[in-house]
Amino acid sequence: MKASIINIGDELLIGQVVNTNAAYMSRSLTAAGIEVVEVSTVGDDSQSIESAVRRCLSISDVVLVTGGLGPTKDDITKATLCRMFRSELYENTEALENIERLFALRGFTLTDTNRRQAWVPQCCEMINNDMGTAPCMWFNISNGQCQDGGRKSKVKQALVSLPGVPFEMEYLIDRKIIPLIRERFEPGAIVNKNILVQGIGESFLSDRLERVEASLPPHIKLAYLPQAGMIKLRLTAKGKEETVLQEEIAQAVRDIRSAAGEFIVGEDHESLAEAVSDMMHSRRITLATAESCTGGEIATKLTAIPGASDYFKGAVVAYCNETKQSVLGVREETLDTHTAVSEETVREMAEGVRLKLNTDYAVATTGVAGPGGGTDDTPVGTVWMAVAGWEGTTTKKMRYNGRRQQVIDRATNEVLAMLMRVIGGQ
Amino acid sequence: MKASIINIGDELLIGQVVNTNAAYMSRSLTAAGIEVVEVSTVGDDSQSIESAVRRCLSISDVVLVTGGLGPTKDDITKATLCRMFRSELYENTEALENIERLFALRGFTLTDTNRRQAWVPQCCEMINNDMGTAPCMWFNISNGQCQDGGRKSKVKQALVSLPGVPFEMEYLIDRKIIPLIRERFEPGAIVNKNILVQGIGESFLSDRLERVEASLPPHIKLAYLPQAGMIKLRLTAKGKEETVLQEEIAQAVRDIRSAAGEFIVGEDHESLAEAVSDMMHSRRITLATAESCTGGEIATKLTAIPGASDYFKGAVVAYCNETKQSVLGVREETLDTHTAVSEETVREMAEGVRLKLNTDYAVATTGVAGPGGGTDDTPVGTVWMAVAGWEGTTTKKMRYNGRRQQVIDRATNEVLAMLMRVIGGQ
Repeated sequence: MKASIINIGDELLIGQVVNTNAAYMSRSLTAAGIEVVEVSTVGDDSQSIESAVRRCLSISDVVLVTGGLGPTKDDITKATLCRMFRSELYENTEALENIERLFALRGFTLTDTNRRQAWVPQCCEMINNDMGTAPCMWFNISNGQCQDGGRKSKVKQALVSLPGVPFEMEYLIDRKIIPLIRERFEPGAIVNKNILVQGIGESFLSDRLERVEASLPPHIKLAYLPQAGMIKLRLTAKGKEETVLQEEIAQAVRDIRSAAGEFIVGEDHESLAEAVSDMMHSRRITLATAESCTGGEIATKLTAIPGASDYFKGAVVAYCNETKQSVLGVREETLDTHTAVSEETVREMAEGVRLKLNTDYAVATTGVAGPGGGTDDTPVGTVWMAVAGWEGTTTKKMRYNGRRQQVIDRATNEVLAMLMRVIGGQ
Repeated sequence: MKASIINIGDELLIGQVVNTNAAYMSRSLTAAGIEVVEVSTVGDDSQSIESAVRRCLSISDVVLVTGGLGPTKDDITKATLCRMFRSELYENTEALENIERLFALRGFTLTDTNRRQAWVPQCCEMINNDMGTAPCMWFNISNGQCQDGGRKSKVKQALVSLPGVPFEMEYLIDRKIIPLIRERFEPGAIVNKNILVQGIGESFLSDRLERVEASLPPHIKLAYLPQAGMIKLRLTAKGKEETVLQEEIAQAVRDIRSAAGEFIVGEDHESLAEAVSDMMHSRRITLATAESCTGGEIATKLTAIPGASDYFKGAVVAYCNETKQSVLGVREETLDTHTAVSEETVREMAEGVRLKLNTDYAVATTGVAGPGGGTDDTPVGTVWMAVAGWEGTTTKKMRYNGRRQQVIDRATNEVLAMLMRVIGGQ
């Protein structure tokens, strides 16, 4: 079973908004056993929308469209689909009631502009959007035309139009659209497995895994997904029986472990922050961070995961020497003698925040993210990292290439991998 | 002049990686006066790649392709393009020297797998990738076929294949590809203008701007780009004379200011963090943050912008009551009487971090981001915010709908907008 995604919006084509919707939808569809064959982004333009819809209908069973459903003049998706399928707009009572409910909740007065959002094409099935004012629309398609009347027993193809606001789309996809697709299309099984690898380059890893890759059955694929300073390996198995796929994947994981086990820092996680979160929860360990060049990125990554307050007690972003001294207790002498970017400073930062926030472990970073601030002794990209715990303090120095955000992201992953290794006893 | 973007990679189709490359490329192309008409994402599959390339060549002058150039088996872009254009691969000396240089720099030994990256199709112009081992390839296209020999004086269409690693692609796009496109195609002018609006919903803003929108000339477009808790308005003007477009845009901005000026918190900025950064630099003000529910997101957003160390002295992420007391000096009595999510606590957090880090201004947040942790009195989505400065402390309470990340992002924007208003004297 195949799906395509079309994300509509001029803001995506001029790059003012990163298309996170595509990733979210792809992830949800894949997890539900539906293969995404294409993602297209087009502007708020009838002709582009129509031609993308026609093309995607020619290569997939389900086409999911987001965006262009707002109340403003640049939102033309609904009118375009209505004309394409030769239908008429009508005011849907359930959609209107939902809009009225949301306006009452927020204490706003309903305007004509907002009321227009309740109009949907007659040929579609309106799916209520509890999270927002733009209704979701399900079109049953047969031979490129919409099959009037909504819930048909035999669905050949479907086109679903969703709002582009991320949390509304996410709610609708997970709670309503994926369940409906599974109910109406009955797709096969897909099993995905992630393995996080850190401390080895892509080509070296590929050499190590050459024999494992060659021995994989054809319905199992191995992909290398480089992230900042690390690689996510992804195994994907497609077939009929989920339990069979699970067993085959488990064997492949064992093979990968025996070929490159020392570099594996996580399994079944999307990110190192998730791996750390699980480790902290299962071992009931508390953590704090002291961050200079990473500017709070480590704390942000960790606290983005629900339940962080169970183990994460806080962070000190010490973006100047004064803060390093006054909050973390780094000694003036250390800063004077060794500078802010040094092994001595990062060690005092990690130990200082661990003491101050009274945690089992603490990580620290100090470095030059760039583009300015580099010196001959400490060029841009130099980062000192530390992990402090019961067993003492481990430090590491890295010199990264790349831009500011790249340096921040790599240092964040590096120090989280260090933490995993220290706690895991590697 | 029109461009299309094709991003290749199974990791994009299963949603494991967010396609930030598309946004970056679109932004750079738009700023260079090149209209992006479509962005497509396809898997590591010859047929999908070939059909996307053919289609994009039929609707655009330049097609930019990223991804699938790595040394591993799942990278097939180069072989696909080579076969499509009936060319042969050869070992390019300059590309090989670049790979050898990068390996020597990292102290690694060159393997056969890596050496293969220096092979490129004979019909293309190799463009050296100083930042990585995968060479960039420029194909001059005429009637769907590659015009052998690289640098032709009359270029009709071009296809450019770039590596998918973000910082390598970014370097190549900005330093090499965009300059080459402008030199070889001479596109027209585009002027973009951003206006950041906060504190008013999209439909209310649309009502306010109805007359402004109606009065815009047809070559100027106004788009509404909702972000977390705010809206970015984007004016785009296309034409021949950049100075004329600049004047027309300036008039439109004046009209928007007179219709909704009180909600405008930034101009010429991509984000509120950028607007804050500019304000801080121009007024030589220092800043600190005390964050509970935002978990370091405010500090991360601010420090992501180069030059943050000029004004940002640090942050304290106080993710438990103990840290709020020990580092920020919030009184035990305040936490006991009013709880951690209260006006009193957020005020003491802002004032505490301002005192501790010795800054002109400080912002603070405390709330329940969810999904757990809500109570009847303080449901999920409740956030208290404060701005402390010379003129005293301003507080605000919000109750957000949406998921954890949504709550964090909205609170971050809300408190930055509060800061802009306090400092701007609104």
